[in-house]
Amino acid sequence: MSVKELLKSHGTPPREVYFDLENSPFVPKEVVEEMLPYFNKYGYGNPAITHKPGWEAYGVLLEAKEFIAKTICAESPEEIVFTHSGTEANNLAVLGIALKNRKRKGKIVVSAIEHLSVTFAAEYSSKLFGHEVAVVPVDEDGFIDPEIFEAYMSKDVFLVSIQTVNHEIGTIQNIKELVKIAKDYNPDVVFHTDAAEAYARLRFSVKDLGVDLVTLSSSKIHGPRGAGALYVRRGIELEPVIRGQISVEKLWPGAENIPAIVGFKKAAELAFDNFEENVKKMKNLRDMLMEGILDRVPDVLVNGPRGNLRAPDNVNVSFLYVEGEALTIELSLRGIYVSSASACTSRMLEPSHVLLAIGRKYEEAHGSILFKISRYHSEEDINYALENIVEAVKRLREISPIKGVKNE
Amino acid sequence: MSVKELLKSHGTPPREVYFDLENSPFVPKEVVEEMLPYFNKYGYGNPAITHKPGWEAYGVLLEAKEFIAKTICAESPEEIVFTHSGTEANNLAVLGIALKNRKRKGKIVVSAIEHLSVTFAAEYSSKLFGHEVAVVPVDEDGFIDPEIFEAYMSKDVFLVSIQTVNHEIGTIQNIKELVKIAKDYNPDVVFHTDAAEAYARLRFSVKDLGVDLVTLSSSKIHGPRGAGALYVRRGIELEPVIRGQISVEKLWPGAENIPAIVGFKKAAELAFDNFEENVKKMKNLRDMLMEGILDRVPDVLVNGPRGNLRAPDNVNVSFLYVEGEALTIELSLRGIYVSSASACTSRMLEPSHVLLAIGRKYEEAHGSILFKISRYHSEEDINYALENIVEAVKRLREISPIKGVKNE
Repeated sequence: MSVKELLKSHGTPPREVYFDLENSPFVPKEVVEEMLPYFNKYGYGNPAITHKPGWEAYGVLLEAKEFIAKTICAESPEEIVFTHSGTEANNLAVLGIALKNRKRKGKIVVSAIEHLSVTFAAEYSSKLFGHEVAVVPVDEDGFIDPEIFEAYMSKDVFLVSIQTVNHEIGTIQNIKELVKIAKDYNPDVVFHTDAAEAYARLRFSVKDLGVDLVTLSSSKIHGPRGAGALYVRRGIELEPVIRGQISVEKLWPGAENIPAIVGFKKAAELAFDNFEENVKKMKNLRDMLMEGILDRVPDVLVNGPRGNLRAPDNVNVSFLYVEGEALTIELSLRGIYVSSASACTSRMLEPSHVLLAIGRKYEEAHGSILFKISRYHSEEDINYALENIVEAVKRLREISPIKGVKNE
Repeated sequence: MSVKELLKSHGTPPREVYFDLENSPFVPKEVVEEMLPYFNKYGYGNPAITHKPGWEAYGVLLEAKEFIAKTICAESPEEIVFTHSGTEANNLAVLGIALKNRKRKGKIVVSAIEHLSVTFAAEYSSKLFGHEVAVVPVDEDGFIDPEIFEAYMSKDVFLVSIQTVNHEIGTIQNIKELVKIAKDYNPDVVFHTDAAEAYARLRFSVKDLGVDLVTLSSSKIHGPRGAGALYVRRGIELEPVIRGQISVEKLWPGAENIPAIVGFKKAAELAFDNFEENVKKMKNLRDMLMEGILDRVPDVLVNGPRGNLRAPDNVNVSFLYVEGEALTIELSLRGIYVSSASACTSRMLEPSHVLLAIGRKYEEAHGSILFKISRYHSEEDINYALENIVEAVKRLREISPIKGVKNE
């Protein structure tokens, strides 16, 4: 079946609720409108060139750096480096430090549940330069035990990369404590945290955490794709991972994507306006969805922690005896758009390494569904989702061949 | 002076003509409008995920690949790989092949006037893996002499990277002939051409040229920033340069930037509609501007070839006894937006390596101005530009300290 035929047979459901904010953003109208002038009216020049549209672009770029720097309590706007995505920012952090250390032996420490752009970048450094990659395990909720972490530290560790908030199961890590342990062991170690999932949903200060490198991503906060950022503490030296003509950014070549950066900034402004209220709303909707599922659907496992150490936007549950991909499709037909950590959905060969790391079995990982909540969702959205989740899971369990292995 | 004060004192000129299409695009309304639904109405999902917005995105992505593949006579849409920029596509080509060959000794051949994202990527490969980088010289118009090129070939060359059209001086290289020489010498050599400056302005066929890898860029054809592409002939193996979660593209991780790709496709469609007419218009305006400058301003050098072997959109001249940056500013005040290869303007330490490679002296390179013509320009734009160029150059020569060294 062609994609066109597939979409034709799918049709448009009466109500649509988009929960797949993990994999791609819904960019709200007010963010898109903010971007529009920068395509052809104002600041459409290259910010490194000396003419009016270039200076306009330069001014806009500085303002975006200033705003973002302020939101994470960075000392200077110059510490914010724009890339085209969070994946690129993570690569710049991990490979940028690995490249700097390529002539020495040494160790990179990551957790077992990092985003693949950290994990794979670290493995790549190992392949290219022979660095050792040590993978710190996590407990059944995704937390790192500080004592276990400490056991992984040694004088030859030059880079630690631990996520602030996990992208799949929402675990909020105690980064400050881990930084302290790492720096006590070796003050020269570079500490990177991928905070793409934390930014604009948790308040944090890079100074307070003591981190050296922090990844942020526009697409994770309702901003457009095309902009990520790496906070690089003054004094930390990285090597650029790709090469070319430098514009304003010294660490990622090519002309900055000004419209995307403007959208990133606007999305951040919207999130930080009424921050506490936004977060409270997300938490309420999160709990409403999670409790609703647990109340109304039997045989469900919650993936990740519950309560205050879970990200306000994260709901991840495994529906036992259901295949995750089948459920994403069944829910899509009902206008509910989610993702699964099952192998087929994400076109990877393996199910989520995050779910396996917290001890989920393959079949449990395969039935997992990830919902990301945002302030753009309403209680009606959650109620509509709940009704349909109940029906969809019931239907699939009735017809699913997996049901038969329920008691194995 | 702050950027705001600078812009305030600059003011808005009565007429504005943007010629700096080399460094950043002006994205026309019809392209922006085409992109809009993909932010939040249609296809805003991740194309690798199994739900309606994801399938829509997947369909759109395939259509973009199909269209672009057709325009360069690729055999299959799968040979088109999207990145976020031409710089990234060049890095994927050069570093992707270099990484594949990292365990062997070998040579990369580039020309002296490649885009820096090729030159620097090749140099980086040399630094990391010890590959030799051989730089083929060009003549005073930027052409490679096939006999000289042949002298650079040897059995250990594994990659050749030569631009189809030079980005600064518009030289159209005889790629087909160079490919033949390289492949006759060694059929296994991979031939990459950066065709970002050629695409949608010259017709070419990857089959006819015989090339293996071809770089294209959205921002060079009035498309938005955020999308580049690499044609990868089936069977050519590359290693990804950055790492992470794979979506549809196997060679550049992260979610594809669908709105930018839609804009790229639309910009290409517009350029290929009435292709011959568009090109004819560009050539006429190009010649009108170039001849007008030569007629009306004394002491001007044309950089790059004249006639049919010059890109239809390229005007590059050196105004002697004038400092390029000063001229870009003077022209900006008059609403004419251009770039210069002078050191300061591009924030590089050295003036353009392209102009030095064709034998320009430092002071000649410093006075160079690059204009890129497009079908969106009119004869009135060119006349307005000519009037103001005459006045601006005259004014600067009257006050310039460089004038005094005229006869040195």
